[in-house]
Amino acid sequence: MTRTVIESKTKTVVIGFDEPFCVIGERINPTGRKKLSAELELGDFSTIERDALEQVACGAMVLDVNSGAVFTNKMAEDPRYADNNFVEPPLMRDLITRIQAITDVPLCIDSSVPGALQNGLEAAEGRPLLNSVTGEEERLELVLPLVKKYNVPVVAISNDDTGISEDPEVRFAVAKKIVERAADHGIPAHDIVVDPLVMPIGAMATAGQQVFALIRRLRDELGVNTTCGASNISFGLPHRHGINAAFLPMAITAGMTSAIMNPMRVAEMEAIRAANFLMNHDANGSQWIAFSRIMDAVEGGATFAQASQASQDSGAGRGGRRRRRA
Amino acid sequence: MTRTVIESKTKTVVIGFDEPFCVIGERINPTGRKKLSAELELGDFSTIERDALEQVACGAMVLDVNSGAVFTNKMAEDPRYADNNFVEPPLMRDLITRIQAITDVPLCIDSSVPGALQNGLEAAEGRPLLNSVTGEEERLELVLPLVKKYNVPVVAISNDDTGISEDPEVRFAVAKKIVERAADHGIPAHDIVVDPLVMPIGAMATAGQQVFALIRRLRDELGVNTTCGASNISFGLPHRHGINAAFLPMAITAGMTSAIMNPMRVAEMEAIRAANFLMNHDANGSQWIAFSRIMDAVEGGATFAQASQASQDSGAGRGGRRRRRA
Repeated sequence: MTRTVIESKTKTVVIGFDEPFCVIGERINPTGRKKLSAELELGDFSTIERDALEQVACGAMVLDVNSGAVFTNKMAEDPRYADNNFVEPPLMRDLITRIQAITDVPLCIDSSVPGALQNGLEAAEGRPLLNSVTGEEERLELVLPLVKKYNVPVVAISNDDTGISEDPEVRFAVAKKIVERAADHGIPAHDIVVDPLVMPIGAMATAGQQVFALIRRLRDELGVNTTCGASNISFGLPHRHGINAAFLPMAITAGMTSAIMNPMRVAEMEAIRAANFLMNHDANGSQWIAFSRIMDAVEGGATFAQASQASQDSGAGRGGRRRRRA
Repeated sequence: MTRTVIESKTKTVVIGFDEPFCVIGERINPTGRKKLSAELELGDFSTIERDALEQVACGAMVLDVNSGAVFTNKMAEDPRYADNNFVEPPLMRDLITRIQAITDVPLCIDSSVPGALQNGLEAAEGRPLLNSVTGEEERLELVLPLVKKYNVPVVAISNDDTGISEDPEVRFAVAKKIVERAADHGIPAHDIVVDPLVMPIGAMATAGQQVFALIRRLRDELGVNTTCGASNISFGLPHRHGINAAFLPMAITAGMTSAIMNPMRVAEMEAIRAANFLMNHDANGSQWIAFSRIMDAVEGGATFAQASQASQDSGAGRGGRRRRRA
């Protein structure tokens, strides 16, 4: 049975076919968050720290940490800041250190800059998830040796030097190539978490069926765990959280075992909690019952983050929330 | 490709693997609705008529019509009213006639009384769905000849003379027996809509996985359409509409093609509309976009029934709402 083990200093999260769905919080990401980039440029980590705590309270089991900031003011003074290879490595180290100091969930080190991945791997305690390798030759040769050296699991995105194919057969073939290339480096399939790439259904009507079929094949034929940027499915559509909240249980039924997503959205988290229960990954429904009290509080006027924090502080559902493996 | 064709005088609904999910409205059912039984006893059909119109406005594609009323006052005067074989046949005829006069969707004739099924079949225009046959010998021999004589599709419930088995293998075997027995009567598999029986996950932790696996087998091995009483999955649980709203997309992913359910619940209908879009059964997302306007109105304070009725009156999404086959 495929089990991808991710660890912080004190906690273990297992991504697997027989495990509750793994929610990887996506919010620690300055890409497209101009205000956040500006704060980080000034050495202000307060938003990052709040995002980390709130995501964990809302149910994130792993936190993705992306260092893709643009330091506009520094760039004007020093042209080296125009190069992400210069900006991201020290920023990744700082982000990991800060977040690790205030939370105990495992981290996912997310960058396209090899130096940032390296610094993240050095700074992270435990066994972080590396995000990501692709089927591009250069990426394979840069990232797989890091995966092997640090003995960590890695997200494998199904695009290659020809780009992102709209043909699911090609995306499956790319995933297969990455798994095989990893094996050449001595990396087992259970340490590869494939992202089959989710297209927006607003642009491609077959996108849902395509990804469900791909997830099933990745599970049945390659035996790998899967993840995706879940909200991409609803890009550009009205009431997109309703689409996301149906997509996640459907993908879980097809065999998807994790997603990189916003855990602060109650509709999506409700769908995942219900799907866990329906997949028999919530013993006695204790997680659902704890979550339903949070929903009661939300209906009473609290924000989801507040209600989740209050539930966490009271220790509700603590027993089942996270399996601890010392 | 399996297609179960249900018709009213003017409309055709197809249950099928390549069709939008078929919502069968469950509300026209006096069982357990004491006030409704009392109204029907006085010949008052106003609640029935309102339920019919509101369910159709909210998105019911077929209306289930159950005649299981208990006429307490008449019973006190005339002991024949204690027998459902006396009460239901004329009531079914009246219900069908009344509902047919004000709506144009196909009907599902729902009774355990053979005389009520017979009267319903005589009163219904078009090609109604018969609900139901079971694997019980007596039911098989009573109902299958009606199905053959009137050339209608039938709901087949997976219990037999030994009751409802908790073992999905047994429930599959019962479904298979009904399909085979129907074939002996000259009834094709595409006219059998199997209800694999949904158990509450609150009582049986494996109930979700069990029914998903059963639906896949019924589809792959018997080639039949499926239905279920969807809300049973969440019986006894808090925030049960959240469970239902995850269950329906999951069952649809497994291959379920219809459900007998309450179409006036916005959470469940939102999940089904999203699942249709994700299964590529909503061309250009036009149904989703029309539905999202209804959700806007609900967020603005309208009831779901009001907002749905207003949308229907304005003709929104009419083009795609129902395929007409003359």
